[in-house]
Amino acid sequence: MACCGGCLCCQCCCNEGETRTPEELTILGETREDDDEILPRKDYESLDYDRCINEPFLEVLEGLDNKKARKYEAIKWILVFAIGVSTGLTGLFVDFFVRLFTQLKFSVVGQSVEECSENGCLALSLLELLALNMMFVFISSVLVLIEPVAAGSGIPEIKSYLNGVKVPGIVRLRTYICKVTGVLFAVAGGLFVGKEGPMIHSGAIVGAGLPQFQSITFKKIRFHFPYFRSDRDKRDFVSAGAAAGVAAAFGAPIGGTLFSLEEGSSFWNQALTWKVLFCSMSATFTLNFFRSGINFSKWGSFQLPGLLNFGEFKCPDGDKACHLWTAVDLAFFVLMGVAGGLLGALFNCINKRLAKYRMRNVHPKARFIRVLESLLVCMVTTLVIFMSSMTLGECRDLVSNVNNNTSTQGSVNEEVNSTIRRFFCYNNTYNDMATLFFNPQEVAIHQLFHQNATFSPVTLSLFFVLYFFLSCWTYGVSVPSGLFVPSLLCGASLGRLVANVLKINFHMQIYSGTFALIGAAAFLGGVVRMTISLTVILIESTNEITYGLPIMITLMVAKWTGDFFNKGIYDIHIHLKGVPLLEWETEVEMDKLTASDIMEPNLTYVYPHTRIQSLVSILRTTVYHAFPVVTENRDNEKEFMKGNILISNNIKFKKTSVLTRAGEQRRRCQSMKSYPSSELRNVCDEHVVVEPTEEGQDILQQMLERRHAPYPNLYPDQSPSEEWTMEERFRPLTFHGLILRSQLVNLLIRGVCYAENQSSASQPRLSHSEMTEDYPRFPDIHDLDLALLNPRMIVDVTPYMNPCPYTVSPNTHVSQVFNLFRTMGLRHLPVVNAVGEIVGIITRHNLTHEFLVAKLRQHYITI
Amino acid sequence: MACCGGCLCCQCCCNEGETRTPEELTILGETREDDDEILPRKDYESLDYDRCINEPFLEVLEGLDNKKARKYEAIKWILVFAIGVSTGLTGLFVDFFVRLFTQLKFSVVGQSVEECSENGCLALSLLELLALNMMFVFISSVLVLIEPVAAGSGIPEIKSYLNGVKVPGIVRLRTYICKVTGVLFAVAGGLFVGKEGPMIHSGAIVGAGLPQFQSITFKKIRFHFPYFRSDRDKRDFVSAGAAAGVAAAFGAPIGGTLFSLEEGSSFWNQALTWKVLFCSMSATFTLNFFRSGINFSKWGSFQLPGLLNFGEFKCPDGDKACHLWTAVDLAFFVLMGVAGGLLGALFNCINKRLAKYRMRNVHPKARFIRVLESLLVCMVTTLVIFMSSMTLGECRDLVSNVNNNTSTQGSVNEEVNSTIRRFFCYNNTYNDMATLFFNPQEVAIHQLFHQNATFSPVTLSLFFVLYFFLSCWTYGVSVPSGLFVPSLLCGASLGRLVANVLKINFHMQIYSGTFALIGAAAFLGGVVRMTISLTVILIESTNEITYGLPIMITLMVAKWTGDFFNKGIYDIHIHLKGVPLLEWETEVEMDKLTASDIMEPNLTYVYPHTRIQSLVSILRTTVYHAFPVVTENRDNEKEFMKGNILISNNIKFKKTSVLTRAGEQRRRCQSMKSYPSSELRNVCDEHVVVEPTEEGQDILQQMLERRHAPYPNLYPDQSPSEEWTMEERFRPLTFHGLILRSQLVNLLIRGVCYAENQSSASQPRLSHSEMTEDYPRFPDIHDLDLALLNPRMIVDVTPYMNPCPYTVSPNTHVSQVFNLFRTMGLRHLPVVNAVGEIVGIITRHNLTHEFLVAKLRQHYITI
Repeated sequence: MACCGGCLCCQCCCNEGETRTPEELTILGETREDDDEILPRKDYESLDYDRCINEPFLEVLEGLDNKKARKYEAIKWILVFAIGVSTGLTGLFVDFFVRLFTQLKFSVVGQSVEECSENGCLALSLLELLALNMMFVFISSVLVLIEPVAAGSGIPEIKSYLNGVKVPGIVRLRTYICKVTGVLFAVAGGLFVGKEGPMIHSGAIVGAGLPQFQSITFKKIRFHFPYFRSDRDKRDFVSAGAAAGVAAAFGAPIGGTLFSLEEGSSFWNQALTWKVLFCSMSATFTLNFFRSGINFSKWGSFQLPGLLNFGEFKCPDGDKACHLWTAVDLAFFVLMGVAGGLLGALFNCINKRLAKYRMRNVHPKARFIRVLESLLVCMVTTLVIFMSSMTLGECRDLVSNVNNNTSTQGSVNEEVNSTIRRFFCYNNTYNDMATLFFNPQEVAIHQLFHQNATFSPVTLSLFFVLYFFLSCWTYGVSVPSGLFVPSLLCGASLGRLVANVLKINFHMQIYSGTFALIGAAAFLGGVVRMTISLTVILIESTNEITYGLPIMITLMVAKWTGDFFNKGIYDIHIHLKGVPLLEWETEVEMDKLTASDIMEPNLTYVYPHTRIQSLVSILRTTVYHAFPVVTENRDNEKEFMKGNILISNNIKFKKTSVLTRAGEQRRRCQSMKSYPSSELRNVCDEHVVVEPTEEGQDILQQMLERRHAPYPNLYPDQSPSEEWTMEERFRPLTFHGLILRSQLVNLLIRGVCYAENQSSASQPRLSHSEMTEDYPRFPDIHDLDLALLNPRMIVDVTPYMNPCPYTVSPNTHVSQVFNLFRTMGLRHLPVVNAVGEIVGIITRHNLTHEFLVAKLRQHYITI
Repeated sequence: MACCGGCLCCQCCCNEGETRTPEELTILGETREDDDEILPRKDYESLDYDRCINEPFLEVLEGLDNKKARKYEAIKWILVFAIGVSTGLTGLFVDFFVRLFTQLKFSVVGQSVEECSENGCLALSLLELLALNMMFVFISSVLVLIEPVAAGSGIPEIKSYLNGVKVPGIVRLRTYICKVTGVLFAVAGGLFVGKEGPMIHSGAIVGAGLPQFQSITFKKIRFHFPYFRSDRDKRDFVSAGAAAGVAAAFGAPIGGTLFSLEEGSSFWNQALTWKVLFCSMSATFTLNFFRSGINFSKWGSFQLPGLLNFGEFKCPDGDKACHLWTAVDLAFFVLMGVAGGLLGALFNCINKRLAKYRMRNVHPKARFIRVLESLLVCMVTTLVIFMSSMTLGECRDLVSNVNNNTSTQGSVNEEVNSTIRRFFCYNNTYNDMATLFFNPQEVAIHQLFHQNATFSPVTLSLFFVLYFFLSCWTYGVSVPSGLFVPSLLCGASLGRLVANVLKINFHMQIYSGTFALIGAAAFLGGVVRMTISLTVILIESTNEITYGLPIMITLMVAKWTGDFFNKGIYDIHIHLKGVPLLEWETEVEMDKLTASDIMEPNLTYVYPHTRIQSLVSILRTTVYHAFPVVTENRDNEKEFMKGNILISNNIKFKKTSVLTRAGEQRRRCQSMKSYPSSELRNVCDEHVVVEPTEEGQDILQQMLERRHAPYPNLYPDQSPSEEWTMEERFRPLTFHGLILRSQLVNLLIRGVCYAENQSSASQPRLSHSEMTEDYPRFPDIHDLDLALLNPRMIVDVTPYMNPCPYTVSPNTHVSQVFNLFRTMGLRHLPVVNAVGEIVGIITRHNLTHEFLVAKLRQHYITI
């Protein structure tokens, strides 16, 4: 309940879009009884992916010829290349130090164990291991204290960001440093965590930060580079960076591209996708180049694709009867998919309960408690590793080299065999449990995939159980921690177990490595429930296209089985964080609702010309991020406008802004006449008998004046008063555009306004770069020094507003609204009725699953 | 000019969207002088991808619970699986018979050559070959006569379809039969054509046809299967089918999926993409299963992925110094990319001229001329093959087996060496030209990629030149003909040439196969200019992830170089066909135009309630495919509506259709009151003092009546008369929805109308299945028997129209309009001004590149 309390509190100080109406609170109140419901929080901002083509932007556009556009494009290519290379280097850095520390650790401890197994001083070895591990984990945990968003895998956060939600702090340089260093020490500390998830997060931060050439963490890093200062460009670069992260982690450039498409794509953007693929390729091959150079001293060759790779699956050449898999095996793969889905659902369920427990009991307490928890996990993990290696292992024969002594297989086996552990085992045998536990996780995966010697079924089962629960406990501890490698290892042990049973008990001719791989895929699929991108990532990691079908079928079955019980682990954590994520599509049932059912009808609006005092009061008393720009309608506008410059300016704007077909046709005819070679202008001339401009103006004016409102307070200088009746409060307003809070504050701070006795043309004009200079942290209204402003001055917001956002009609069904909103990456979607009046506004919160469900329930009650 | 004449003629009998305004004709007239310009034709229909949620649809929706939705989903999965399997089997069929015929041919001729090289009767061998080839090509060509759209690769047509243009006849069963059988004989006939492009087309036809369970070609094939009767579902299945085609052709399921995303995706549709990938996998593995079974008798194993595969690129195990490629090679790859781009541009340029020549001089003539052309091409090709094999080849040593006699390499070489040709060469040498020419193209590619023995530089150059011109001539001949394999072979010979030069003249340590592969990629990339999907297809075909970077860089460079000169071959052919294709995005410059600049302001519209006589006259005198449903505004509506049931119904509809904020708020408050647990309803109660419904109605009525028009002819029963002034013609119209021509005709044919003295509720109601029963061929208005209809009856179209299509404001910039239109797969986009009046309509034709360029030119002239 503490967490829910937290959510409620956040809702009080919410600052996105709109507050919930009392009515919604009532409805949602019902569901809050349910302990399991965590509602989307309102303190997350949305990204603004849609382009705002206002006058400053058009000025930039005017100056943009094809040459400049090409230059701009070239800069983008260079930047994505730089992002790829930097991400690759990040991967290299992590990999190098993890390898160094791990080698150091295992060589020290391994030596000690070998000495002590004779002397009986094993406790000393354990202490050494404990000390080293806890030191590493302590460093990692302290780094996360500095920047709490660096905890976990980062994939939920990146997924949220690509979905269009700004999670505070996740793309900061400080987060990058803490994440990269933290994951290094967490992995070196022997925790059951992977470095792949954090790689994706790091790549995304590089993508977000590098093209900005400035940092909020280090204020001194600030070059003059006025490009790409918008959410749109930033999100594009983040998707490139995240893809590069995947590519570096798994050596899977195509999988990375599909990952960022799957998580982040709005409409299919050919040019962007092509850049993302290039970025991924750069990352993979940068890492590959340096690792091949450093590890094998083969500079210029490319032999080690990703941080994680699965080695080569290959039948021995001599063995003609050997197949990696056959049609019959597919049936087993389906069953393994079911098992993976079930176990994954169990994993997610336990982890969700743990996470909730942490949110209630650990997070509210002092921060060092989290460090203590990490240390506790580290201690238990180390003890389990040590104890089980020493006591639970079996000594197994090394059979492989006898069977397949061909040259090809030899080299693979050589590598695999060099990492076995022989603790207490002699005479060409090895300790199977120690081989799995007393090695880096990647090596253990290789063992399960490629070691021909058998692991005992008891060892594999024990290993699976221990690993399952420990890694479940670990994910969520306050260190940077990926989930891919632990899940793969866990699943691989299960797969290998199945292979053992089939081979020994049923004497089937199968390839154990394939079963281990499928087991790994099944469990990982059951946990994360990713689909397309995970399939491609696994295919690329195995570098074997023929595994496509089995991997895909296994993942499909695992996902379907798992989805029967709960959501994927990342979605669970996103949900626990209360991020208002938008799903892929709405359920069919939701189409019973229309835009008017889900929109927010309470609007705070501004007029095209508004006094500074009104603007300041609106900005200070509301928390909305965007305001519709509207005009009112009344009968005697002509007389009315004589007295008041403000009103007359607003009415004038309204008139000029309404384009009619007759006016448009007239304009076209005129341009035809001025068009030199026109032979057909007579067609127009015939009809335009009277002087068109004069009459046209008249009709336009008549038409607009025909609409009148009975309300006395036309264009008030203050917000709606409490005494207004509902009719007054909700009087018809013609919609003209949207202006963002940040834009309004910017106008006020830069003194963009004109005096009552001047024309609006005298208002100073801001350029596009002045409008975007402060991106991404725009000044707050409370930073504004009111003494510098004359409250009676008038601001003309029309050049700076977005004059033509996408709109929907109130009758539009939810699936269409959702599709438009999600695909175009919108932040505010005005609902406009058949006569052009704004009747409400839809933001991300009106489209979250929880909100729609509540509205649907209400819909059923009222009918 | 004949072709342009054809276009003009088509414009006269155009039946899509709207005719060009005189003004546009003038502007476009300028460009027609330019011989190179072919304007998009107007006789192509657009697909209607957007969902139309009207009342029949809502009725279906009401009956749809989650269980039915799951059943519907399950049917889809089964269908995509069926599509995948059928496409795989199609591939198998083509492959089997091509193999059979080719083996037959080469064994007969090869035997004859070997006999004759001693006896000197080579002319006889030539005659045999000629006879066989010409017979095959004749059959193929005759099949294309039966169904002319079966000619060519089919990729331009599928690209157009996925882009949203209905090309008549391309997804018919007859086309499928002609294409599949035709390509089989074309390839067997020794023409320089591939079977991969036609595979993609065949897959797409399977995708379009299979889920319909009926055929237009064979009327008897007609099951009752009322699902998926919409353009939306059909296009989804076509993209799955096309992906399956690629997957079967290249053994590249991921590449196939990306191909259909790249060509056809609107918004990213997770569920669809997942199905498409599954479909591709099914196709690949069906083909794989049967080919492995048939060719190797290894049923249940999967060893032969696609119709085309490149074999395994692998360094011999002993050779530690061998690398597939190194960083240094990348520089050469870039240069080869440039060369590929240049040669590709040349190829496209020549082919374009040829195609234009054919359009003017061959196509207008009798059809058998096309058959004669095919036979001519076949004859020349056969002569070239035979002559150059006999006279231009060099005898080269078979060096390979000496160098790398390890077990791995052995098996590959065995396969490669079995296909060399020894014509006139003895003593362990072979005839290099004959090996390339006297083999199926796939084998020749394998030779260039994997044969360690060298080909002479002279042979390679000659081969390239001959192949280049012959395949350029062949593409466009009236047979089904793919372009992938000829381009790959052409490029591979060039790449191998580069490798030879570098190896022998510069003594570099390189892997020749890689250079051949990169050459192939460069040339293919230069010709087709595909990006992401081609990269992935080639990576998957090589089954070697490490080729990712070189292939990608080569393709990028080739594309950029080529784009400097002309467009890709498929785009050229699409352009020549006059298909109004929408590009990925508009040029930056186009943002100087707004929706009002490009829209069509001349509208033909219907009212919510219209007399049958008006509808029939509108449908018979116009060619538009959709009509806006509008109402007019006038002062004394109240009195006016008393006299006339039609007018009063229309006015009533208008009133009920305008939702206001006040009304909405009132509705919410009322629902709050009825809501049991509401504690907060007082908030609402306070404001609703007077009886809300009564007053609300009043205000609404007042508000609407305030708008009045000066025109006498309110709701006329006939189309606008010629005497109207422009003001009358373009009077303001409030927009309420869109109705399609097919829907209107359907309503008329099924007698959906009511008599003047009845209420509109008495009108019969059509169900959703009745509305879609005739899909995809809806009846024509001219099929309607007017005698059965009473012209005075009134049709209420409101339940059947699309009540909330996406709209844009007239000030919206072109990039935003384009993005919305393309992403949502729209067909008609109404332009609605700030007070809800429709001012124009935008269709695909208003967004084609040519139209925008013309408008931009006009824009520059007028300012």
